[in-house]
Amino acid sequence: MSGQGGIVQEEVKIGVVGGSGYTGIELLRLLLRHPAVRLQAVTSRHEAGQAVSARYGNLTGQIDLTFVEPELSVLTACDLVFFATPNGVAMQLAPDLLAAGVRVIDLAADFRLRDPAVWEQWYGMAHACPELLTEAVYGLPELSRPAIQQARLVANPGCYPTAVSLALLPLVSEHVVDLQRVIADCKSGVSGAGRSTNANLLMGEVSESFKAYSVTGHRHLPEISQTLAAVNETAVQLTFVPHLVPMIRGIHATVYAPLVTTLDDLQTCFTDYYAAEPFVQVLPPGSHPETRCVRGANQCQIAVHQPQPAGPIIVLSVIDNLVKGAAGQAVQNMNLMLGLPEEMGLQQIALLP
Amino acid sequence: MSGQGGIVQEEVKIGVVGGSGYTGIELLRLLLRHPAVRLQAVTSRHEAGQAVSARYGNLTGQIDLTFVEPELSVLTACDLVFFATPNGVAMQLAPDLLAAGVRVIDLAADFRLRDPAVWEQWYGMAHACPELLTEAVYGLPELSRPAIQQARLVANPGCYPTAVSLALLPLVSEHVVDLQRVIADCKSGVSGAGRSTNANLLMGEVSESFKAYSVTGHRHLPEISQTLAAVNETAVQLTFVPHLVPMIRGIHATVYAPLVTTLDDLQTCFTDYYAAEPFVQVLPPGSHPETRCVRGANQCQIAVHQPQPAGPIIVLSVIDNLVKGAAGQAVQNMNLMLGLPEEMGLQQIALLP
Amino acid sequence: MSGQGGIVQEEVKIGVVGGSGYTGIELLRLLLRHPAVRLQAVTSRHEAGQAVSARYGNLTGQIDLTFVEPELSVLTACDLVFFATPNGVAMQLAPDLLAAGVRVIDLAADFRLRDPAVWEQWYGMAHACPELLTEAVYGLPELSRPAIQQARLVANPGCYPTAVSLALLPLVSEHVVDLQRVIADCKSGVSGAGRSTNANLLMGEVSESFKAYSVTGHRHLPEISQTLAAVNETAVQLTFVPHLVPMIRGIHATVYAPLVTTLDDLQTCFTDYYAAEPFVQVLPPGSHPETRCVRGANQCQIAVHQPQPAGPIIVLSVIDNLVKGAAGQAVQNMNLMLGLPEEMGLQQIALLP
Amino acid sequence: MSGQGGIVQEEVKIGVVGGSGYTGIELLRLLLRHPAVRLQAVTSRHEAGQAVSARYGNLTGQIDLTFVEPELSVLTACDLVFFATPNGVAMQLAPDLLAAGVRVIDLAADFRLRDPAVWEQWYGMAHACPELLTEAVYGLPELSRPAIQQARLVANPGCYPTAVSLALLPLVSEHVVDLQRVIADCKSGVSGAGRSTNANLLMGEVSESFKAYSVTGHRHLPEISQTLAAVNETAVQLTFVPHLVPMIRGIHATVYAPLVTTLDDLQTCFTDYYAAEPFVQVLPPGSHPETRCVRGANQCQIAVHQPQPAGPIIVLSVIDNLVKGAAGQAVQNMNLMLGLPEEMGLQQIALLP
Repeated sequence: MSGQGGIVQEEVKIGVVGGSGYTGIELLRLLLRHPAVRLQAVTSRHEAGQAVSARYGNLTGQIDLTFVEPELSVLTACDLVFFATPNGVAMQLAPDLLAAGVRVIDLAADFRLRDPAVWEQWYGMAHACPELLTEAVYGLPELSRPAIQQARLVANPGCYPTAVSLALLPLVSEHVVDLQRVIADCKSGVSGAGRSTNANLLMGEVSESFKAYSVTGHRHLPEISQTLAAVNETAVQLTFVPHLVPMIRGIHATVYAPLVTTLDDLQTCFTDYYAAEPFVQVLPPGSHPETRCVRGANQCQIAVHQPQPAGPIIVLSVIDNLVKGAAGQAVQNMNLMLGLPEEMGLQQIALLP
Repeated sequence: MSGQGGIVQEEVKIGVVGGSGYTGIELLRLLLRHPAVRLQAVTSRHEAGQAVSARYGNLTGQIDLTFVEPELSVLTACDLVFFATPNGVAMQLAPDLLAAGVRVIDLAADFRLRDPAVWEQWYGMAHACPELLTEAVYGLPELSRPAIQQARLVANPGCYPTAVSLALLPLVSEHVVDLQRVIADCKSGVSGAGRSTNANLLMGEVSESFKAYSVTGHRHLPEISQTLAAVNETAVQLTFVPHLVPMIRGIHATVYAPLVTTLDDLQTCFTDYYAAEPFVQVLPPGSHPETRCVRGANQCQIAVHQPQPAGPIIVLSVIDNLVKGAAGQAVQNMNLMLGLPEEMGLQQIALLP
Repeated sequence: MSGQGGIVQEEVKIGVVGGSGYTGIELLRLLLRHPAVRLQAVTSRHEAGQAVSARYGNLTGQIDLTFVEPELSVLTACDLVFFATPNGVAMQLAPDLLAAGVRVIDLAADFRLRDPAVWEQWYGMAHACPELLTEAVYGLPELSRPAIQQARLVANPGCYPTAVSLALLPLVSEHVVDLQRVIADCKSGVSGAGRSTNANLLMGEVSESFKAYSVTGHRHLPEISQTLAAVNETAVQLTFVPHLVPMIRGIHATVYAPLVTTLDDLQTCFTDYYAAEPFVQVLPPGSHPETRCVRGANQCQIAVHQPQPAGPIIVLSVIDNLVKGAAGQAVQNMNLMLGLPEEMGLQQIALLP
Repeated sequence: MSGQGGIVQEEVKIGVVGGSGYTGIELLRLLLRHPAVRLQAVTSRHEAGQAVSARYGNLTGQIDLTFVEPELSVLTACDLVFFATPNGVAMQLAPDLLAAGVRVIDLAADFRLRDPAVWEQWYGMAHACPELLTEAVYGLPELSRPAIQQARLVANPGCYPTAVSLALLPLVSEHVVDLQRVIADCKSGVSGAGRSTNANLLMGEVSESFKAYSVTGHRHLPEISQTLAAVNETAVQLTFVPHLVPMIRGIHATVYAPLVTTLDDLQTCFTDYYAAEPFVQVLPPGSHPETRCVRGANQCQIAVHQPQPAGPIIVLSVIDNLVKGAAGQAVQNMNLMLGLPEEMGLQQIALLP
């Protein structure tokens, strides 16, 4: 592929490793309509030999590929490879792909934490290529756009970290938040857990109910802390509690941020920070974002409140966990890495109702 | 507007009357991304003066128009006007619009029944322009594509009639069905009832429950009967029972069609009939269509079974009631009326999960 | 146990085999509040050694038993044993239990079909004790109350067969239905599939969607046919299509019954037939039963329509698949077998909303 | 009525004002099965003259009363009257009822706040009988059982305040919490908003979505603050954010309580405090309560965590908003006021799944 001033002359060849899960299918939905790329290979160990279109009914008639094994020779024929795999897979293949000149975007957690010791602590395995952790760019465009544009290897952020980080970036970059006392109370639809064979995610178990989970410690905690600490150059003591909502898509972060100083204009702090961002929308004062307003769209909608003068700032932030929280953000990163217009292929309006 | 071989040289100016309901918002979602049209006016009596983008959160930042009153002068400035209004509104304005050279697509029922007496019986009011009922084309492209291409006035089919008619057309056109004994057991998500202030549609009332409704007689019964009778040139005695499903979008029709003769190859009857159709997909034998597989897409997915030799043919047909059952089919009709490629602006892949 | 005129003098000792699934937990909910019985043993191979109260959060503090292995010595210490197990388990243990004087109620399908050949055809295994099939009483009290009262072994009906049979009994007992052309279009909540580790039942897969399943043939078809054929002493050609509803509990049967003769008073046919039944409620003419109105209750609510003179009778019937469709009906059968008041322990009012 | 050692000799005559809403129907469900009371009158202005059993399908065949107007003469014939009405109704009738010797339990907010000025500020109307505010007992039995037993007038707590107060009482009574910095992030099912004709509560609007509401100030904030301040005899600065969950029943409170001192044994603090309470269950360490586990039951389930030594205590608390959060707690209060066993009529096991 080569581009000139944003003009793409050839289609980029794309590989998707792990194309049979929810994140994979969402990547396919976006990539199949992306005007500048072509799906070259979609892999799935379990589904190899099956038509990709047979895996999910929404792909009927949309794609001619067959799932293949994730072999290196298949993937090195691509210009860019997405990993929509469980944690621990991308780190096995990424070094060889990079060596072959293939760019890599990992939608799992393999390259999100910069400290291999922290990674091993939270993910329970040794890292296969710790030397790549410093090269890997954390793919939150609103935070690190220039680095992503230059990156060979991008760690696509987790869904909760995306929602929480976008909620806090304007305040944290102003150094007005007491980062020892921030609380992120987060709520996610069930697709966040993937299409795993887990009786605890049966509709009979999770519909018509609400619960917290992983209160004792969730892997997205060190990821969020790392981002906030880097911005503010300070230690962070974050409380993060995820909850399971009886719906399929959507994350809602309710972030409580005590201030260490006064802030002149809360709303302006946010609207200024995100003024040029295509995928973050700051709602008018007094708003309450709804997850359905971003369903299927690569958008984050944010509202900010301070109901009591002595109380914390309350930031409400919603994303579709499979889009801005996963596949959509990955395509956004791809666009940046390839020099394509950042919004290309990502202009879907959310499906409402 | 003028087109040459499918090349559109100017954007078509579009009006949407009744843009604040579920069908209206879905029309906006599709039209805002349609490459050959431009929204000229969106009307809403209740919302006049308000920003359209403020009505539904998914339109934030997507549209600059303000709702206006549905005045004739506003609408005659359009090339084509959609009515996404309650029954009885379009028939008040359509004659003047047609006289002014504006094409009209009514998504309500005003022009669906050819016999004004039948219309009055089922809709409880006198028809305002019965002389247009014969000119109006019933906008089911799979049945009447040539007539739609020439039409000034299109009656967009009801959601249930779309699902049931598409399920039966291949069989009925072969004259093999006993049309005195067809049963259409249909199920719809709650968005089919619109965004009306009706306590019976509260989530507390309809979620986690299932019921039939209008068993004594539903307005879509004469509409389906009219379509089938016209194809088969025979009287029709149809049993039609709609049910309410605790979900937002989707219609599933389960149609039981007793045969009057044998049929050599049931599957081929369907695949042949729909071979060239872009928006009807006949699934492989043994399939069970799921409404989620067409959510947000202008698709109808169909499977056909005959589980017992002496029993009826069973046709399973799914659509998104707001897309192929309303706004999407309306855009499909618009494309046909305007000489645009039929699939233009309608290639969204369904949102799954 | 001995009873005198409905006065129970000792608690009956009850065993539940397979107490860890949805049917088992529902049995425990009912039996723990039943004034005349005492839970003696609850078995579960997978959960043996675990506290029963730890299995499901609604049992916290409600029961002191520990799951045990389903050994014969444990079960022969009971007066009556329920099997809430997969098909094929009860038939292994029932002969020995009956020989030991223990009464048995099987909530699975082992004893529902009288013809072992038909059973093997539909359930794919040889029957372990075909000699018991004629002794076993099909436990639909509204059909066979006297036999149940005398039974040692009761086959608790399937959920769909309960809803469909109750919908048809009044008409079929009058010999007015054309049993060659009955159609039962049935809809069930997801708990009907049990708490199985099946990715196809994840909330991400089945919520916000609707589909038919097993259209080519479902095991409840021969069960319903057997019941109707026995009542009417005629051959039956039934069409039965089950569908999956995105809700947890509830079955709605929409039954289309063409008449072979005229019927003087349709409504009276039903109200007379069920006049003395405590657990079947015939709703007023024009009604549409809702599954939520029987949620958690051992009730069947029925409405009957004939919208078109030449068309079929339409019977709408709702039950909670886990109560009147499983555990509640099993307790009703237990009451009859033990000479207890039939309504004892079954008077819960449905949970609405 | 008189009781001796728990033996009730006559049934207490009960009135329910406002019996047609969700709270009213839930009261009827409980009172119809309560062994010591008899429903004397159920009022509803809108439904007067209609059979109560016709209002909700779960009451079919369960109750013979007809809705009547809420006239004083009707209500003074009762021993105790529940108000399941909008705010502002009970305060109009309570003085006359009390004067006539009728005890009163208000499930709305009229008597919850002790300071009439605060009441007027939050409820936007002058209080009709401020002189009763000091007599009224706040009906949280776990906090004020002796006073309730003596009360003529009980203010039944709000749903959120019940969940949050029960989460905090053990800690606050130990004076270990920094009450200037407590955050209560709460989530409620849609039935909390009642059966109001509100398009914003349509299933099409709230299902498959999640949002916060009333972040700028919710009426339950002063109610919770008043309770905590009274226990701790200190000023309280609480942050309270409610959210709407796409489910019907259930409240989940996630309470973040920073400590002002160390606490030896967090779990024991809770288990000791609630050791004798029949309707509060402290789950084992590491637990995550689920709202479904208390659906339909008068239970509060609580788990307590301190995931990080320097971070706040996190208390998770679930109730059914219509039971322990409204009707069930009202019956519990009634039992206390009447000298009946506190658990009478409240021993339903939650409906799961």
